Amino acid sequence: MSAPIHDLAHVGHAELLTPFAQDSLRFFVELFGMEIEARDGRSVYLRGWGDYQRYSLKLTESELPGLGHMAIRAWSPEALQRRVAAIERSGLGIGWIEGDHGHGPAYRFTAPDGHLLELYYESDRYDPPEDLRPALKNVPQRYVGRGAAVKRLDHVNLLAADVAPNRSFALDQLGFRLYEQIVNDDGGEVGAWMSLTIAAHELIYVADYAGARGRLHHLAFFVDTREEVLRAADLFLDADVPIEAAPSKHAVAQGMFLYVYEPGGNRVEVTTGTHFIYDPAYEPVVWTQAERARGQAWGVKTVETFHTYGTPDISGVATGPPIPPTSWIPGPGGVHA
Amino acid sequence: MSAPIHDLAHVGHAELLTPFAQDSLRFFVELFGMEIEARDGRSVYLRGWGDYQRYSLKLTESELPGLGHMAIRAWSPEALQRRVAAIERSGLGIGWIEGDHGHGPAYRFTAPDGHLLELYYESDRYDPPEDLRPALKNVPQRYVGRGAAVKRLDHVNLLAADVAPNRSFALDQLGFRLYEQIVNDDGGEVGAWMSLTIAAHELIYVADYAGARGRLHHLAFFVDTREEVLRAADLFLDADVPIEAAPSKHAVAQGMFLYVYEPGGNRVEVTTGTHFIYDPAYEPVVWTQAERARGQAWGVKTVETFHTYGTPDISGVATGPPIPPTSWIPGPGGVHA
Amino acid sequence: MSAPIHDLAHVGHAELLTPFAQDSLRFFVELFGMEIEARDGRSVYLRGWGDYQRYSLKLTESELPGLGHMAIRAWSPEALQRRVAAIERSGLGIGWIEGDHGHGPAYRFTAPDGHLLELYYESDRYDPPEDLRPALKNVPQRYVGRGAAVKRLDHVNLLAADVAPNRSFALDQLGFRLYEQIVNDDGGEVGAWMSLTIAAHELIYVADYAGARGRLHHLAFFVDTREEVLRAADLFLDADVPIEAAPSKHAVAQGMFLYVYEPGGNRVEVTTGTHFIYDPAYEPVVWTQAERARGQAWGVKTVETFHTYGTPDISGVATGPPIPPTSWIPGPGGVHA
Amino acid sequence: MSAPIHDLAHVGHAELLTPFAQDSLRFFVELFGMEIEARDGRSVYLRGWGDYQRYSLKLTESELPGLGHMAIRAWSPEALQRRVAAIERSGLGIGWIEGDHGHGPAYRFTAPDGHLLELYYESDRYDPPEDLRPALKNVPQRYVGRGAAVKRLDHVNLLAADVAPNRSFALDQLGFRLYEQIVNDDGGEVGAWMSLTIAAHELIYVADYAGARGRLHHLAFFVDTREEVLRAADLFLDADVPIEAAPSKHAVAQGMFLYVYEPGGNRVEVTTGTHFIYDPAYEPVVWTQAERARGQAWGVKTVETFHTYGTPDISGVATGPPIPPTSWIPGPGGVHA
Repeated sequence: MSAPIHDLAHVGHAELLTPFAQDSLRFFVELFGMEIEARDGRSVYLRGWGDYQRYSLKLTESELPGLGHMAIRAWSPEALQRRVAAIERSGLGIGWIEGDHGHGPAYRFTAPDGHLLELYYESDRYDPPEDLRPALKNVPQRYVGRGAAVKRLDHVNLLAADVAPNRSFALDQLGFRLYEQIVNDDGGEVGAWMSLTIAAHELIYVADYAGARGRLHHLAFFVDTREEVLRAADLFLDADVPIEAAPSKHAVAQGMFLYVYEPGGNRVEVTTGTHFIYDPAYEPVVWTQAERARGQAWGVKTVETFHTYGTPDISGVATGPPIPPTSWIPGPGGVHA
Repeated sequence: MSAPIHDLAHVGHAELLTPFAQDSLRFFVELFGMEIEARDGRSVYLRGWGDYQRYSLKLTESELPGLGHMAIRAWSPEALQRRVAAIERSGLGIGWIEGDHGHGPAYRFTAPDGHLLELYYESDRYDPPEDLRPALKNVPQRYVGRGAAVKRLDHVNLLAADVAPNRSFALDQLGFRLYEQIVNDDGGEVGAWMSLTIAAHELIYVADYAGARGRLHHLAFFVDTREEVLRAADLFLDADVPIEAAPSKHAVAQGMFLYVYEPGGNRVEVTTGTHFIYDPAYEPVVWTQAERARGQAWGVKTVETFHTYGTPDISGVATGPPIPPTSWIPGPGGVHA
Repeated sequence: MSAPIHDLAHVGHAELLTPFAQDSLRFFVELFGMEIEARDGRSVYLRGWGDYQRYSLKLTESELPGLGHMAIRAWSPEALQRRVAAIERSGLGIGWIEGDHGHGPAYRFTAPDGHLLELYYESDRYDPPEDLRPALKNVPQRYVGRGAAVKRLDHVNLLAADVAPNRSFALDQLGFRLYEQIVNDDGGEVGAWMSLTIAAHELIYVADYAGARGRLHHLAFFVDTREEVLRAADLFLDADVPIEAAPSKHAVAQGMFLYVYEPGGNRVEVTTGTHFIYDPAYEPVVWTQAERARGQAWGVKTVETFHTYGTPDISGVATGPPIPPTSWIPGPGGVHA
Repeated sequence: MSAPIHDLAHVGHAELLTPFAQDSLRFFVELFGMEIEARDGRSVYLRGWGDYQRYSLKLTESELPGLGHMAIRAWSPEALQRRVAAIERSGLGIGWIEGDHGHGPAYRFTAPDGHLLELYYESDRYDPPEDLRPALKNVPQRYVGRGAAVKRLDHVNLLAADVAPNRSFALDQLGFRLYEQIVNDDGGEVGAWMSLTIAAHELIYVADYAGARGRLHHLAFFVDTREEVLRAADLFLDADVPIEAAPSKHAVAQGMFLYVYEPGGNRVEVTTGTHFIYDPAYEPVVWTQAERARGQAWGVKTVETFHTYGTPDISGVATGPPIPPTSWIPGPGGVHA
């Protein structure tokens, strides 16, 4: 076993593509409860109340839904240089960009399955405007409690035609730690749960049943308690948000989940969990096909679409977003007379 | 023991007076999460998402804060007539009014301490506008989850110069059931917790230390879970709402509490609890001074103002509302760019 | 509309039959967290920490599982006499028994579908032994928090070959109030949710798909919070209790549910909810087949067995309890060295 | 700024001294819900259900209460050697011990205030006995839910005559990260919250008002939800456990707290929280005296003893444990007949 790599600190933000930008924006603001931190061209930068950086979600208008890119913050400038050098040796590097809203120079590269990733170190610390200034100085923003009131981006789940090389790359070149895996009876890797921290997962790869490349399974946003996940389901039900999977508990990684589709067609999750991996010598947990067939933690069977649907949708069946973009529109805010 | 009186069904609504009507209104809409159902002159009718009637809070502009009136709904027209007859015999009756927004004829009377009460039977069932229509037909309104998102009025706590006659009147003339009491060592009644249902309290009388008459201690609004009470505290903290008593658990009646001041100066509570009284032969629990001195359920000492402050404030000390009416103003709703 | 009947106060207890008495007993003590209050012959009397009477569950050894009887407490001796007279007129009466452990004379009768019911008024108030004495005098028993730590019996769900006459009998002769119904497109009643209090249900009838008579669907026990329902699922998972339906939220009556099988083969539920019916003129909510087909509140599809399995099991397929009676046995209580 | 040190992984366990060993043991087993993993001489090794190692609490009989030692696990054998070399250079080293139950060689040293600390790398992974085997393979132990059912040791809070040198040592020699501080107006450090992970604190130093050296403020154990902290308070109330501070939310580090005294006289905490520090360039939050005077997050004033009491107690006033060792004894486990 080689020495652990401690060069990358955490997944910093993700860019989500949507063909229905206005509807997606309203979804993330009104129903996920995020704040618009900035706008730039076809992109809007959104933050949860617990994000210490300016944003953790960049929402960009695009012809098709899916992942724009995912960005990982390094521990230091030197650590960043070490990882860039490693990626360049791998032949998957693209090159530096000047930066983006809220962060400095970033190195772009293509993960083995084709997803666009970035590494960066320099980052602005969020400075809230007056009306979002919190009462306590150790939280970045006032808690307004709108909608599901997600706290921050929690993890990114990517579909890959072949999980193994992506998992290897994340471990060997990026320094992720592998916490859990699903391996089929024929030895095929079906899923890999990885993290840069004690959090149970920051980056997940799951096999793309369609054999496609570079697709997104879902983005997950954190709330502090299981009760808030249940409350989010109550909210989404009344707001006509399509619920793919009602709140329950994952067997893998033990997180509480709630999966819905945002208007752009992307699957997004409200999650919480305190399954922390403190063990520096953690042996990844490997799940078999038979074990996975038992369903989620409390026996709930995973819905079929969870295994088959990703964005962009290449099924040739669904040609639009799964929800009429206007049906979930929130009311006028308390005044009905 | 006389036969139980089953003529009155439940406390239907309360009218709250406020000298800062606009600020109070914004408080109940933005922070308590209530909906404006109607406006009429100097009054606004507000509802929680779980109210089956049009409203449970009537907010009325007034020179001083305090209770306008409290209204109780009867089980039937005949039951209403029986209670009206009993009150008329007591000499405390005032007479009928034609009705108010959302309900039919009501009989007004003065409870022994001087509080204005009403009895009514006819009542509109709430019919939500399109944008507040819920997904499930057994809930009256869409759950939008704004602010503390209170569900409905839970109970009314009144201050009385002398608790005993008010308690007697409520039991004998109105058919309330007495569930808990505080009686001092000298035999003086300090508090009485009463209900028309299995809920642990709908109407409470507490001794007014100032010896004044007709004052309000607080109105309490229900949420479904203890976690929501904690969440409300997080919201109120960041919104600069003055928290009089942080979330904890009452010894009396076992409810979870959170007390704050609304901008008009009235104390209001966010509460929850499932301490139900199913026993038809329930013997009221009588607490002694010594027992009450132990504090709340988990040992928290009750703050001094809880025993001394009521509305209107007649202390001669506080001459205005306890909070600058503009300090808690919510932000512009997600858009900061 | 006739005047409301206020003669019966609440469902007081239920008797559950089990062919595996020792295993069922350990289940209710160790996993549901109930206390053994008394034993008598082949029966054990069990209580939740919030039961104000001596017990709410009588567990009786029997050849087959199912319901022994269900008992309802009256508001007063006079109210009891009125209901007995009404039942005798209906021709379904059986007669008086002297009483049972913890309560006085009870009148037995057969509900239309053949279930054995009892009415009683005199009842002992629970007096805890020293080691179960609570800290606060308004709770009947110390909270020890063992297992799911159920608070009390919440409701009884009975299967009936024909729902309508049972629903009518409960309303007209017993004074239950009808809160929700499922009525098929052909007008057939499939379910009726009824209560004597503001609680969303105390007695439920559901159509028996097998057309059998007198069977039990489930007994439900209350916990105070949704979080405790989730926690119970964690406990049951590790204790190898067969989970029929993982925690989620009912559309009908809005309760949070978790269904499992106890070792005797009976379905039992851990539930919570604060969907109260305060309206004295409540119009029952009627659900259609199409609405029910949408699944539970958050879209979870009800498992097939929920519609087909009852006790005793007359399917001819399952010939024993659904779980090996020894598999869920708890450990030796903290000492493993 | 020097490069971050990533040599130590997390606080592995703590040893607690107690003059009433049997009573303390029963407290941790019955009320905190821990399992006895092993016994050795005057020590008992206890674990929470989420501990991946054999134990996180070593309970040792001793004349006086207080901290025995605290042990920190390294990321690797090499990392361990690097830290040992650094400590030896500091002059505070003591030397190697062969190991203890469940872990290999450990290097002992004295932190500046006199507390005994250890570093180790080799550690057994917990292998549960049959009756504690969990249903899911990614949790170390079956969840039995006894008492407060703490998951694992969360953090250690030490009193120090002078906080600054201890904080410096932890940062510079051990690689802790400083997340929050209290600094008085005169520049004196009153508290330092430090961690090796994204968790908001693993090691805390607080000024000892008595000016004593080497004392313990408290050990804190984690539960997953805020609701479990409230539930623990309900349990402790009924078990006559002295509650020093009822459940509420810390301003510093945002954790939910509940402080009690175990029978040996040591303060112990039930805590939860998801205030994670992902920022690799985190600027420590510095609280002033004035800010701290505002109380905890929701305004609760910290009780006086929290600032003055530590173990061993050197006040000369309290000469025994604060609780009669037998008063909290749990009942006989469900059988009272």
